[in-house]
Amino acid sequence: MGSAQSTTQPQVPLHPYYPLGVVIPGYVPKILSTVEILGIFSATCLGILIPTWLYARRARQGLSSGEVLTVLWFVLCGFIHLGLEGYFARYAHDLASRSTVLAQLWKEYSLSDSRYLTADAFVVCMETITAVFWGPLSFVCAWCIVADHPLRHPLQSIISLGQLYGDVLYYGTSIFDLLVRGVEYSRPEPEYFIGYFVFLNGFWIIIPLILLIQSTRVTVRTFALAKAAGK
Amino acid sequence: MGSAQSTTQPQVPLHPYYPLGVVIPGYVPKILSTVEILGIFSATCLGILIPTWLYARRARQGLSSGEVLTVLWFVLCGFIHLGLEGYFARYAHDLASRSTVLAQLWKEYSLSDSRYLTADAFVVCMETITAVFWGPLSFVCAWCIVADHPLRHPLQSIISLGQLYGDVLYYGTSIFDLLVRGVEYSRPEPEYFIGYFVFLNGFWIIIPLILLIQSTRVTVRTFALAKAAGK
Repeated sequence: MGSAQSTTQPQVPLHPYYPLGVVIPGYVPKILSTVEILGIFSATCLGILIPTWLYARRARQGLSSGEVLTVLWFVLCGFIHLGLEGYFARYAHDLASRSTVLAQLWKEYSLSDSRYLTADAFVVCMETITAVFWGPLSFVCAWCIVADHPLRHPLQSIISLGQLYGDVLYYGTSIFDLLVRGVEYSRPEPEYFIGYFVFLNGFWIIIPLILLIQSTRVTVRTFALAKAAGK
Repeated sequence: MGSAQSTTQPQVPLHPYYPLGVVIPGYVPKILSTVEILGIFSATCLGILIPTWLYARRARQGLSSGEVLTVLWFVLCGFIHLGLEGYFARYAHDLASRSTVLAQLWKEYSLSDSRYLTADAFVVCMETITAVFWGPLSFVCAWCIVADHPLRHPLQSIISLGQLYGDVLYYGTSIFDLLVRGVEYSRPEPEYFIGYFVFLNGFWIIIPLILLIQSTRVTVRTFALAKAAGK
């Protein structure tokens, strides 16, 4: 019966995503394995981080290790927001039928959140704003840190709060639908829910929160000094 | 036939909300008229704004008209976020069955967006964050302006970006569902779609955008001056 199903063309294609039976029009399975996809993703991240680090640590005298790390963070964010999330925002309407490396990467991630394959309104809007605003601004912020530009902290605050709020709503809507409506967007295996959904997105809660607090503190101190100097 | 329907207890209660046939469990119609609800809302806003204005214009010497207006804005935001949106966040699960003045106000507003009566995941999460964070912080920010506290601009930026991003996603998700899925959450009469959905929410696009730009400019100038003074 299984082979009979796989040789016919069912109207609702079979797929591994949750909730069971969710309709994913035009779905084509991915070809790359999980290991291949995670390898490509990790290698790309390293391919961005290593040259950025080689450049940033010598870019300006007096750039602290913390500032170099922040430059690395924003450059990586810029590539992920523009490249990965920008691709999703552009092709969200028919991502399930695509077989590019980026589409297959999203199909792997969607095992932990099928909303990426069903063009969920909130996910598409949040990812579009992330790609259009936080993507380019992340590169500008990295440059502002290297150049010691006075726009650095306002920009760091704006991007970080944007990432943080987007991610809190991302977790919030998913957990709300799970607890209130009993709709599970993630497959039950812990590697998907914990490994992808919780762990990967957790970076965009913790690091933006640290950077937002840092920028707020530095800004408050600068305003306090300016006020004291003005008296 | 109409009177026969109204004396029986239909399983899906009749209601005026869009999309036609949307299920609103436990729905009880509002008793107050549109004029009464708008009157109560306007009178409450004036009851907040007038005493705040009388206090703020004399609170500190050197407080500009722009700063007094910003204090008025944040005090009004504080009350609306905590009182009105806080009520929604607290009772979103059974708002349709409630008949308090606040519930009736939400039933009036829901004519332009039924997601408030169906406990839409994004709307509930966004309103909860608005009530819990931007509500109390709005009062703190109003106080910071009056006290000329160095936290003023960081806080003004955070609240304004939070309001702006929440509102852009609010418009975005609704327009996405309308254009992509053909789901209309608003009744078709222009007083609801234009009057409530576009006009009322428009304030939380325009004013936060102005305040965010203002805070960013002032902060950049202050950092530039501090850098120049340090050299």
